[in-house]
Amino acid sequence: MQKIKVAIVGFGNVGKEVMEAVLESPDMEVAGIVEIPERVHRCRGKWDDFAVVSDVDELGKVDLAILAAGSRCVPQIAPYYLKRGINTVDAFDIHGQSIIKLKQELTSIAKANGVVAIISAGWDPGTNSVARILMEAIAPKGMTYTNYGPGMSMGHTVAVKAIEGVDDAVALTMPQGNGIHRRLVYVKTKPGYDFKKVEETIKMDSYFNRDMTVVFCVDDVGRLIDMGHGVHIERKGVSGRTHNQRMEFIMQVTNPAATAQVMVSAARASLKQKPGCYTLLEIPPIDYLYGEKDELILRLL
Amino acid sequence: MQKIKVAIVGFGNVGKEVMEAVLESPDMEVAGIVEIPERVHRCRGKWDDFAVVSDVDELGKVDLAILAAGSRCVPQIAPYYLKRGINTVDAFDIHGQSIIKLKQELTSIAKANGVVAIISAGWDPGTNSVARILMEAIAPKGMTYTNYGPGMSMGHTVAVKAIEGVDDAVALTMPQGNGIHRRLVYVKTKPGYDFKKVEETIKMDSYFNRDMTVVFCVDDVGRLIDMGHGVHIERKGVSGRTHNQRMEFIMQVTNPAATAQVMVSAARASLKQKPGCYTLLEIPPIDYLYGEKDELILRLL
Repeated sequence: MQKIKVAIVGFGNVGKEVMEAVLESPDMEVAGIVEIPERVHRCRGKWDDFAVVSDVDELGKVDLAILAAGSRCVPQIAPYYLKRGINTVDAFDIHGQSIIKLKQELTSIAKANGVVAIISAGWDPGTNSVARILMEAIAPKGMTYTNYGPGMSMGHTVAVKAIEGVDDAVALTMPQGNGIHRRLVYVKTKPGYDFKKVEETIKMDSYFNRDMTVVFCVDDVGRLIDMGHGVHIERKGVSGRTHNQRMEFIMQVTNPAATAQVMVSAARASLKQKPGCYTLLEIPPIDYLYGEKDELILRLL
Repeated sequence: MQKIKVAIVGFGNVGKEVMEAVLESPDMEVAGIVEIPERVHRCRGKWDDFAVVSDVDELGKVDLAILAAGSRCVPQIAPYYLKRGINTVDAFDIHGQSIIKLKQELTSIAKANGVVAIISAGWDPGTNSVARILMEAIAPKGMTYTNYGPGMSMGHTVAVKAIEGVDDAVALTMPQGNGIHRRLVYVKTKPGYDFKKVEETIKMDSYFNRDMTVVFCVDDVGRLIDMGHGVHIERKGVSGRTHNQRMEFIMQVTNPAATAQVMVSAARASLKQKPGCYTLLEIPPIDYLYGEKDELILRLL
């Protein structure tokens, strides 16, 4: 069997977990790690068996690039891979119009190059989105509440760290019920920066401006870090004309590992789609798994 | 907008709920009800607005047939519709090789006639199957337990009612944890039949022979009937090399309404697939819902 050659783009928390998920996938192998030049040295040590490069062209043949970089880099870097005939998967997590825009941009590039891009393939957006649509297929009318946390939000943490004056930070999501959340942000500022100004910038950021956000000034962020996260999706709705149909999806996971595994599962699915750009809502679920189709149906149906 | 014309085949508990789900679907209309001749009269009264026929050819143009008949009729009746250029959806619920066999048979007939059959489109097999595969996409290694009930199993009840000597019956599924179940069957026998013999036949039936089954002899089955049912799917598994990833899917529903709605959602999806036969594992989830694709992505992703 010819294994799928995977390039891992970005080697932070999620990238390292992507590496482990690829190594555990019987049908995949690591082609190498792509990092920005000033970070290439960081990938040494534990991962010396793998090529670490700053341009995917140095890796030879690559089938797939898993973009384990921050969401805000995705629109810039995905086209580079697609134009080289490499499928991409990302966990772009900025909800709303940004996703539609990204999908439109990557659709034309992917189709022109005969490849597939799967976007927003984390757990939310991602597998939670599939759970939500499944609930609506069972009960089309009604209300769904997605309650996140308690846990560290990686997207929000990355967004805070990118703000000027922030030395280190962690952003926690606390569920308040009925899909209402509080964001708790713990920030260590860089010397010479005004905490109040940093706090205001965080609160106005598109990741935070829709929720109640409390920002704390701390000396040591490291001792606050725990990667556990969770979600509780609840729907009460109507099937046909029958009310009081209740559904729940609950998940408690180590966050980067779950995100990475979903991307790897989506990467496998990408090889089974026609050229274009997809969200997980548009992917037949069986395509995520390794194995023969009839056997999967027999085991899982 | 041209509405999708739906024939409802079989008008028992599920068929009536299919009617309501179609009437509540903005993109569908009821072409009519198809019943076996001796049952046509039963559909009168509340449903006088709709044609009740014993052959779908009497209904004029039909896009879709929703087969709300017992699972064991499905292999016989589905080909009749597919050969007439009508998509079919069923809730065939006999797990195991029977599904693979049905899929193979309907695949060739559907392809030869340029139509789509969606099989096993209830909640288990069906939406629960999608939940199980979603959990494996998040954590490919580990154990999943599907705990059904407590509630009345329609498939099991229909199977008992078909046994010789049974006048009326209801079969309940009681979860015992870790995917272990007890089946409680309440039977009113026909005059002149030996309860002990009926009990043995039930216990040997393929619906019951894998679980602990207790059969009770009762005088009145009607007063025991409550259509509530539920499921609790639990998975604890490994994402990449990270253990202790936990997921749950919980549902508490009026059973025939949920089954009917899933079939109607799958019926909509059938019009978006290429000719062939599919389980819900092979359907992009977005295809179940009514609405414009980008709007659904914006709302649900």
